[in-house]
Amino acid sequence: MKVVIVGGSDAGVSAALRIRELQPNYEVLIVTKDSYPNFSVCGLPYLHSGEISDFRSLFHRTPQDLEALGIKLKLDTQVLAIDAKDQVLSTSSGEHITYDTLILGTGVLPRRLSVLDDLCSPSVFYLHSPTDGERLESFIRTNTPRSALIIGAGYIGVEMAEAFITRDIRTYLIEQNDQIFPSAEVEFATRIQDALIRRGVSIHTSCGVEKASQTLDDKISVTLTDEESLEVDLVVVAVGVRPNSMLAEVAGIELNTQGAIVVDSYMRTSKPNILAAGDVVHTFHRVLDRFTYLPLGSTAHKQGAIAGEVASLDQTHRFTGSLGTQVLKVFEDVFATTGLKREQSLREGFDPLFIEIEADDHKAYYPGANKIYLSILGDRATKRLLGVQMYAKVTSAVHKRIDVAAAALYSSMTVSELLDLDLSYNPPLGSPWDPLQVAAAEWIRRSQIRQESSR
Amino acid sequence: MKVVIVGGSDAGVSAALRIRELQPNYEVLIVTKDSYPNFSVCGLPYLHSGEISDFRSLFHRTPQDLEALGIKLKLDTQVLAIDAKDQVLSTSSGEHITYDTLILGTGVLPRRLSVLDDLCSPSVFYLHSPTDGERLESFIRTNTPRSALIIGAGYIGVEMAEAFITRDIRTYLIEQNDQIFPSAEVEFATRIQDALIRRGVSIHTSCGVEKASQTLDDKISVTLTDEESLEVDLVVVAVGVRPNSMLAEVAGIELNTQGAIVVDSYMRTSKPNILAAGDVVHTFHRVLDRFTYLPLGSTAHKQGAIAGEVASLDQTHRFTGSLGTQVLKVFEDVFATTGLKREQSLREGFDPLFIEIEADDHKAYYPGANKIYLSILGDRATKRLLGVQMYAKVTSAVHKRIDVAAAALYSSMTVSELLDLDLSYNPPLGSPWDPLQVAAAEWIRRSQIRQESSR
Repeated sequence: MKVVIVGGSDAGVSAALRIRELQPNYEVLIVTKDSYPNFSVCGLPYLHSGEISDFRSLFHRTPQDLEALGIKLKLDTQVLAIDAKDQVLSTSSGEHITYDTLILGTGVLPRRLSVLDDLCSPSVFYLHSPTDGERLESFIRTNTPRSALIIGAGYIGVEMAEAFITRDIRTYLIEQNDQIFPSAEVEFATRIQDALIRRGVSIHTSCGVEKASQTLDDKISVTLTDEESLEVDLVVVAVGVRPNSMLAEVAGIELNTQGAIVVDSYMRTSKPNILAAGDVVHTFHRVLDRFTYLPLGSTAHKQGAIAGEVASLDQTHRFTGSLGTQVLKVFEDVFATTGLKREQSLREGFDPLFIEIEADDHKAYYPGANKIYLSILGDRATKRLLGVQMYAKVTSAVHKRIDVAAAALYSSMTVSELLDLDLSYNPPLGSPWDPLQVAAAEWIRRSQIRQESSR
Repeated sequence: MKVVIVGGSDAGVSAALRIRELQPNYEVLIVTKDSYPNFSVCGLPYLHSGEISDFRSLFHRTPQDLEALGIKLKLDTQVLAIDAKDQVLSTSSGEHITYDTLILGTGVLPRRLSVLDDLCSPSVFYLHSPTDGERLESFIRTNTPRSALIIGAGYIGVEMAEAFITRDIRTYLIEQNDQIFPSAEVEFATRIQDALIRRGVSIHTSCGVEKASQTLDDKISVTLTDEESLEVDLVVVAVGVRPNSMLAEVAGIELNTQGAIVVDSYMRTSKPNILAAGDVVHTFHRVLDRFTYLPLGSTAHKQGAIAGEVASLDQTHRFTGSLGTQVLKVFEDVFATTGLKREQSLREGFDPLFIEIEADDHKAYYPGANKIYLSILGDRATKRLLGVQMYAKVTSAVHKRIDVAAAALYSSMTVSELLDLDLSYNPPLGSPWDPLQVAAAEWIRRSQIRQESSR
């Protein structure tokens, strides 16, 4: 049996590793247009910040590691077409590659901004592939830029703002929405924004690029829609992604309205013997109880492993869904979220009650206590937990506290069930009622007040 | 309506606060033999270590705070008898106090060692009540002891060893069992022991006190069962606790074989209008699916709140059970546990498979990664998760990572469901597969090997 995997990032490599484990006799070939498979794109901001000095340390596994595991690689090779009937691929190098099972892990493409693309400038960067990161890092080391404009204040935008500030580059961050970091409720987006501003980032929200041009001394001159003008040494465009699904589309594989490949819980596409996983597919959302588009690295690993199992004829596990759990480091602070936001829950027909509390990360009498800001979103009708967000110093462990909420959401807990959880307590590390439980109690109190007043 | 609460610690005060909230017109009286209600006994080791300088900061609420909330207090008063028929209490001050509802939160008594009690020495301490802590602290400040023997290496023993070392007191810690900290699997107990030894604690396991005497210069001379002899300036006895249930027993309230008060999930005892909560009652264990004795502060808070609700005629919540989640700080390290241990699971008739892994707390390419040691205990027959233990540096957040496992245990998850959890990932703070999931995958792998080899 021969399994061909298109794409050498998280989903593709996870699938390949799982097949090697389950079916050591299968032939496994990864075809990828990148020169670098199994590369941590999520780690690029920390390369650009200078916290990681060697580009090569961002390999989860090197090509040699993968080959040593019995995985064949065809790098720098674009797959141009899939013949689903005859089960054969055509590549940019003119090859025809047959497969018994095909796994598509083609990921995403960055959304582009024509106003900047039109410049054809070497000072404009998209941070999407390892090569993009290599190019930016080389630009920084060669040109020692003094100023940068980042367009888009999502994950990459915010992390790159921190990276540039850490590297002493004057940083402007602009965002089309009226708040930065759209996964955060506005209360938390404000905290993220404050943390960035405190460290010197200039932020413009509700703002886009009106005009851009290249100056004679190789700077980029930009006029913003709020009429401010900037001259910067480089521009990073991070305005979102879309599924890289054209190959699948042309092969007649079903896509959803957002262009993501439609798969079932075994990662099977609409075509026989073709599986797909990772950022290119739609994702089942456990709280919404329906498919959505929610590309995240941790999800890609899960889906890739399941595609690998199914390709190995092992259907023990199914993909049980995502909650959109995310964590963002902003200098010394951390924002974390899981589940729905207010706005989204309203759109979905829930009757949401949102409450926010602040609580100490451990008993205040023990030195070093810091505040955790924590919100709970629950549905008044069913009392179900819908989402949790947190913000605190790195040392307050909200990156793992959010996982407690994620485990609760996974099990469709009500808010009041959070009170029943047997969570750890020790004065230097916690409180008898965990902040999540303090918030749950407050949510219940407030939901009862509303009930009583509406009687 | 008049609710009388016997005991002013976690369970009693939680009950009182909940009644004030739900039934502001009820009279609430706490009768306690201590001078200090609502005091954090768990915080005492950090007073004795010098990390907390003021005894008074260990009040969760002062007597004045409680009275301002409308809770009446009768301090330094022992309840001698309950007349359950006429609903009246007799106290050490000769009073008779009637009640409509009685809540017993009488907590525990320390197990005593007669070989040391017989000395009647002011240098022997039990650390059970605020007064005990006050007396020890005053002893240390007055006498500047140079050496201490701690008998019993459970929670209090280990925390006091850290406290004494932090205060430059030569410390001997002895334990009757063949390992310290009996809640830990031996692998983890060894790590706790190593951390203590590294900081200079002398540890004797499988060891008790053979003889003890007071020297002329007010030292305590001790001969251990392993034949070693010590002379120390003070002794702390921390050899466990038992339910302080004599008052209940005499009143004819049903106790279990361990002497804990038998309650239902609404904290109702066998006598009408008498509730009980906290360390004096037996506790439903969710993994064992039966009652056991497992006194913990976080459980006492939960049970107290439920007793308060039931006393307020609100039966919305029931006590849904404990998992024995615990966390222990040992200098810069943390041990955390939830659920069962191997030995216990075998005794209960499970078919346990225990596996242990080590994993980085975040992507190794980002600076500052540290190892987490993590074990999973699961039942081969049902694939159910039974318990998780972790050990790492404080910064690796195992005190909240354990809560993710606790949430999974609460929902009776299988080990393989852990793989489905949507946990947070960001290179400086985690990995796409959380260490808990790495361990789950290893558990599944190992359970399959056993299955195959037994076919």
